[in-house]
Amino acid sequence: MIRSHQSHLPTKNPSTNDRMPEQLTLYTAKICPFAQRAELALEEAKAEYTRFEIDLQNKPEWYAPKVNPASKVPAVAYGGPKVAPDQPSPDSEKIAESLVLLEFIADLYPNSTLLPKDPVDRAKVRFFIDAISTKFAPGYIGAVLRGESFDTLFQGIEGIQSLLGKGDFAVGNSFTNADAAALPFIARTLVALEHDLGAFPAGSGSQAFKTLQEDPKYARFRAYYQTLASRESFKKTFNEELIKDVYGKRFTALRAEKQGGK
Amino acid sequence: MIRSHQSHLPTKNPSTNDRMPEQLTLYTAKICPFAQRAELALEEAKAEYTRFEIDLQNKPEWYAPKVNPASKVPAVAYGGPKVAPDQPSPDSEKIAESLVLLEFIADLYPNSTLLPKDPVDRAKVRFFIDAISTKFAPGYIGAVLRGESFDTLFQGIEGIQSLLGKGDFAVGNSFTNADAAALPFIARTLVALEHDLGAFPAGSGSQAFKTLQEDPKYARFRAYYQTLASRESFKKTFNEELIKDVYGKRFTALRAEKQGGK
Repeated sequence: MIRSHQSHLPTKNPSTNDRMPEQLTLYTAKICPFAQRAELALEEAKAEYTRFEIDLQNKPEWYAPKVNPASKVPAVAYGGPKVAPDQPSPDSEKIAESLVLLEFIADLYPNSTLLPKDPVDRAKVRFFIDAISTKFAPGYIGAVLRGESFDTLFQGIEGIQSLLGKGDFAVGNSFTNADAAALPFIARTLVALEHDLGAFPAGSGSQAFKTLQEDPKYARFRAYYQTLASRESFKKTFNEELIKDVYGKRFTALRAEKQGGK
Repeated sequence: MIRSHQSHLPTKNPSTNDRMPEQLTLYTAKICPFAQRAELALEEAKAEYTRFEIDLQNKPEWYAPKVNPASKVPAVAYGGPKVAPDQPSPDSEKIAESLVLLEFIADLYPNSTLLPKDPVDRAKVRFFIDAISTKFAPGYIGAVLRGESFDTLFQGIEGIQSLLGKGDFAVGNSFTNADAAALPFIARTLVALEHDLGAFPAGSGSQAFKTLQEDPKYARFRAYYQTLASRESFKKTFNEELIKDVYGKRFTALRAEKQGGK
């Protein structure tokens, strides 16, 4: 699936790049939270890019040798000639790893809000991202994907709350890379809990969702998520029905195995 | 231990910071590879900063509440009034995590070489750092600190070699944050192997060191390390005798326990 996103012409980058951004092809997958990070950043930067969906269950054979040897999404082909995304040029630069890509997109679009101007605020963005990687994501992976205790997840949410500043966003009053790094994981966690779709015992996801929705302790987290989820960038890059469908199939099968002793 | 480092006055930051950098106090520890990353970056940027050694075995009681709640090094107190490092001001910004600090130092000193100007080269620096975190550091921790197989370490070294460009440094012909992130881990690994000080069986460290020194397969890695180890920034921030002493005590005791059944 290829879409081309037209947008405002990017302005010149005064700091790192005097050239206009070159062609950018994003290899991504709707299901993947890491990949959605890059999509959110590109949308928020009003970048012009070509989106190419990789079927993670059936990756094209050219993907690892020609785009990302690690065979993961997201990855970017930047520069080089305009080519069909499924025929990547050896002359484009290939860049992988979601957090590397967030910095790269901010570098290409320095007039976006993805990174604040002040060095201390930039450090806050990066520290928040580190907390998502080391505190929140392990909670999501543990509780939702592995059926471990919800404790780590709730601790991760409290950790995030403690880092939120006075503004509506993670850092300040604009959408930054901190939000782009966090949102895909928060959104998938909430969909999984709300619809009770996870490796956890049936019913415990719904219960955790109710706690997150009603306990005053998590009011700040709820407000933060509402701010992010109302962004056009989120609506455009998040397909809740797809997530429900994939998680539904995966975890219904898992529960049947556990119960039926297959 | 407090030292003040005088240097060239920093130039104005054209991209992110129109002000001169403010006072910067680094809380660090000679033994710690994460902390040395920040020291290397500050030295390479010719930054003016105050260095304060934290005794990791006996941390001052004010350190966690007033500087870093995670109680780890490195951490920075930036801005605020000039105060004694052991009496940190509530008015300075506190910043932690070694990789967050590398970006912060590059933001404060945009005319240093810590991050290249070109966005693609900057992405290469960050991708290399990611490889150090996910491929090299686990090899060091596994082989040297935990006595696990050397396979992961050798694979990590081969992984690094595959990312090295044509220049003498990780990315291009200047010292960047990629080198600052890598060097502390490489140096500690080599000291541990050369002097056979690690959780590995006696003799196997020396053997691995000989392989790294002589096998043509690792020639590129050797040359890379020689380039980095000859830097003034390294000589100033690396205390080989201290590392040997600490590792010697730790691992001699460990081997005695294993053999003597204490």
